[in-house]
Formats: sequence, C-alpha cells, structure tokens
Amino acid sequence: MQSLCSSLRTEGLRIGFVPTMGALHEGHLSLVDLIKERVDILVLSIFVNPTQFGHNEDLDKYPRDLEQDKMLCINRKVDYIFAPSIEEMYQSNYSTKISENSLSIGLCGSSRPDHFSGVALVCAKLFNICQPSVVAFGQKDAQQVAVIKRMVRDLNFQIDVLVGPIIREYDGLAMSSRNRYLSVENRDKALSLNRSLQRGKQLFTEGTTDARKITNEIKSDLSRVEGLELDYVEIVNRENLVAELDVKAKQSICVVAVWVNKVRLIDNYCF
Amino acid sequence: MQSLCSSLRTEGLRIGFVPTMGALHEGHLSLVDLIKERVDILVLSIFVNPTQFGHNEDLDKYPRDLEQDKMLCINRKVDYIFAPSIEEMYQSNYSTKISENSLSIGLCGSSRPDHFSGVALVCAKLFNICQPSVVAFGQKDAQQVAVIKRMVRDLNFQIDVLVGPIIREYDGLAMSSRNRYLSVENRDKALSLNRSLQRGKQLFTEGTTDARKITNEIKSDLSRVEGLELDYVEIVNRENLVAELDVKAKQSICVVAVWVNKVRLIDNYCF
Repeated sequence: MQSLCSSLRTEGLRIGFVPTMGALHEGHLSLVDLIKERVDILVLSIFVNPTQFGHNEDLDKYPRDLEQDKMLCINRKVDYIFAPSIEEMYQSNYSTKISENSLSIGLCGSSRPDHFSGVALVCAKLFNICQPSVVAFGQKDAQQVAVIKRMVRDLNFQIDVLVGPIIREYDGLAMSSRNRYLSVENRDKALSLNRSLQRGKQLFTEGTTDARKITNEIKSDLSRVEGLELDYVEIVNRENLVAELDVKAKQSICVVAVWVNKVRLIDNYCF
Repeated sequence: MQSLCSSLRTEGLRIGFVPTMGALHEGHLSLVDLIKERVDILVLSIFVNPTQFGHNEDLDKYPRDLEQDKMLCINRKVDYIFAPSIEEMYQSNYSTKISENSLSIGLCGSSRPDHFSGVALVCAKLFNICQPSVVAFGQKDAQQVAVIKRMVRDLNFQIDVLVGPIIREYDGLAMSSRNRYLSVENRDKALSLNRSLQRGKQLFTEGTTDARKITNEIKSDLSRVEGLELDYVEIVNRENLVAELDVKAKQSICVVAVWVNKVRLIDNYCF
C-alpha cells in the first residue's frame, strides 16, 4: 500500500484518504463524496484498530462486514480499499506511542483513557502508509476531530483535515456502526440524544446563552429515559474543547455521551 | 521548508536528511558524506530542540554557532540548511507527544527520563517537514539510533535510517558538541571512556565473552579517574538494547555514560 501510494504521489497525483473501522454507513460514504472532488485518488481504510479499544470495550464484537463494505466502496467509486491485518499494522514488539495530552483528557477521554492515543497512533501510521494530501473525518466524533487536527498540526503532517457533517437516520439518530447493537426498544431510547440536543438548540434560538441552563435541560431530558445512563453533556469550544459558560454561534458545540444498555452512543450539535 | 521539500519530491528527487543540533563537527559531516551519494538533495537541520533537554540540563548553554555551521555545510555541499526557531517548531499550546516505551527506558533513559520522547517528537516533526527518503544518525548516540529506528518502523515512516560510525578526535575522544565544555584537564579525564572501551575490546579479543567481567574491568578502570562520575557501563544487544550475558561479535555493544565535572559524555563500542 505504501509503495503504491508513493508511486501515485511521484506521478503527481493527490491522494484523499478516509480512515474507517468498516461496517460502513452513509456517514462514512458522505466523507468519500466530500473528499473525492478535491483529489485524484481516493483511498479508504478498513481496520478495526485494537489500540483504540479499552479492555472492557467491544473490540471482539465490533461489526465487521468486508464484503458489504467492498460493495459500498465500489458503488461510491473509492479507488483503493486498504484493509490490513492486525499483524501487518502492529509488530508484536511495537513500542511507540502517540499521546495528545490536552484535548484528549475530558469528555470521552474520561471514560476511555487510552482511546485517543490509539486513534492518534493508528492515524499517524495510516497517514504515513497512504500519504494523503487530504483526509476526512466525521463531525459525529467531535473530540476525535479536534485531537487529529491537533496531531496533524503538532507533528507537521502536510495534510488538510476535512470534517463532514453528522449524517442521521430518517428519525434523527446519528449514524454509527454501533447502532447495529441496538434492539428496537433501545434504538427508540437512543433517539433521545438527538431530541435533547434539538431541545438545547431551541433554547439557544429562543435566546438562552447560559451554557449550564442548556446542559441542565438536556440532562433533565435524558434522565427521564429509562435504561439510559448519562456519561456527559457539555458545551465546549469546538476547536480546543474548553468548557464555555456562554454559548457562541459557530464556535460552541454541545457534546453528549450516553450508554443505552451497555451500548455507548455519542452525538453533538454545533450552535 | 515543507513546501520546498514537497516540490522537490514531486519532481522525483530523493531527499537525504541529517538532523542536528548544530555546533557541527566531523561526526555530523561524516553523516553528510555517508548519505550524499544515495540522494539527489541533501538537507541538514540545525535546531537545539528544547523538548529533549531535562530541566537541569544544558539547553541554555548548549553551543550555538550558526555562521560556522553554515561554512561547514557549504564546504560539504549540503543543499539546504533548515534552522527553524523554537516558535516555528512548537506552537505555544502544542500537546502531542511521542514516546517509545521499551528501548528508551534504561541506559541514558534512566537519568534523562524525557529525553528520547523529545528526540522522537522532533524527529517525527522534522521527517514530516523535510520528507526524506534517507536519514542518517551517528552511532555515538547508540540508544537514539535504536529508538529512532523503532519509531520509523512503528509509525511506518517510509525512510531508510543509515548509521554512521563514531568519529573520534586524534586522541580517541568521541566527537561531540559537548566536548567544547571540557577544560584541558577534564578533556584528559574524558579520554578514559575510549581507553576503557578499548580495554574491553582487548579482553574480548583475548577470549573473554562474559559480559560482566568486561563491564567490571571497564568500571574499575573508570573508577580510578578522579572527578569522573560513572552513570552506566552495560553490554547490550545493539538492536533491542537488552542486556547480554555473553558478548557476541557484531551483535553486542558496550555502552558507557559518565559525567566529567557535570559534563555528560557517552561513548560505545560494537564488538
């Protein structure tokens, strides 16, 4: 893959890259569309990266469907799929770690302490292998976006990071490979994420700028859903993820994480 | 620098890169010679990297002589010198760290706990800026060589790492920018490093393969030098830096670190 991408670059072609863990949905594919017109070659990676899963997380049962993914990629005119094995990606004695020590700390970082180190590591590796000029990530993983942008800046990767908007199901549920885990009943409960974020948006539209008032309203909304356990609701600056007291349009973002019967779901809304 | 190097690569030119902290000596320049015939363009960086110095170390007094360095580079036909400022290299809120958690631990890592993280970070940044196909490091910094090779492998940098032999002064002292700190008297004491390593070599040539016998002899030799404080003498595998009980030709390396009146000096010998 690396020598292929080197050849492509030597030919003067610009490579666009969408890293994924497979189980592709319209969220991923919208990133392909977003990036495709800006590049000559589109590479999409499918790799369920073990280093970004905690010990008690869902690495083993994470959905994998390479055949289906291939079909979707062919339909969307992805040029190359890169789907390495764990052994190809991680030598048994690998010992290099990348950590981002500011943006990774709170929010999802609190309950997933090594998650963003694993994401940063695999992205650095994939960037060096696939040598993209442009990469795309989904806004659904808002903290991941901030961490990757920071890493790209701090390590001087010569890469433009594009961010695609959250893609939602017909009923407002943010698309996620993990939605496949949800029973009909739990899926119904999961809808409360977007519903409560919409309620927060409405409060802001109506003139409320006090971040705590908005997050309290969202928490209160979510607390009424039986079987839903709240991880966090916060309003932060979308670039540096610092908590904001006053909500600012186009700058503040409300981020939410919950468990619905052990399925972890996240969602967010940019004011 | 990055866009220059991108242009050069797009033209199909191979870039060779020698990262340095300046105060150039024949050790650095031998790396230029080593790498030059394999590449089209030679880049040498001069950057006294703050993140690889500990709080009590010699960052402030580290020798800097950019004009002299320029002359030496011109004479050796270096194509580009990259000498960024600290502000250009590190944004005030940089928060990404690279750590190598195996080879960095012992030897110099024991007394310089953040040193190799700083080296790894700046090298990753410089590699992304200068986009070399080949880089060269000096064997004098044996642990640094092992850490960088490991990082290049683990992060999938598409870079060949060449290692140049230790270059010595007429009297056997390993060349180092820090030798400038030595008074005549202390320079004389510093000669004991190479002398004791030669003694170790002699023992091996005479048939001694017991690593401990050799290191004990070296320690004993160094302990007789007044004003010299021993940090470590170890015989390790040159790739993975694991301690070796039996010395093996072309595989084992004897590494030594001392302080001579607060000046830290290292040296090593490959059997």
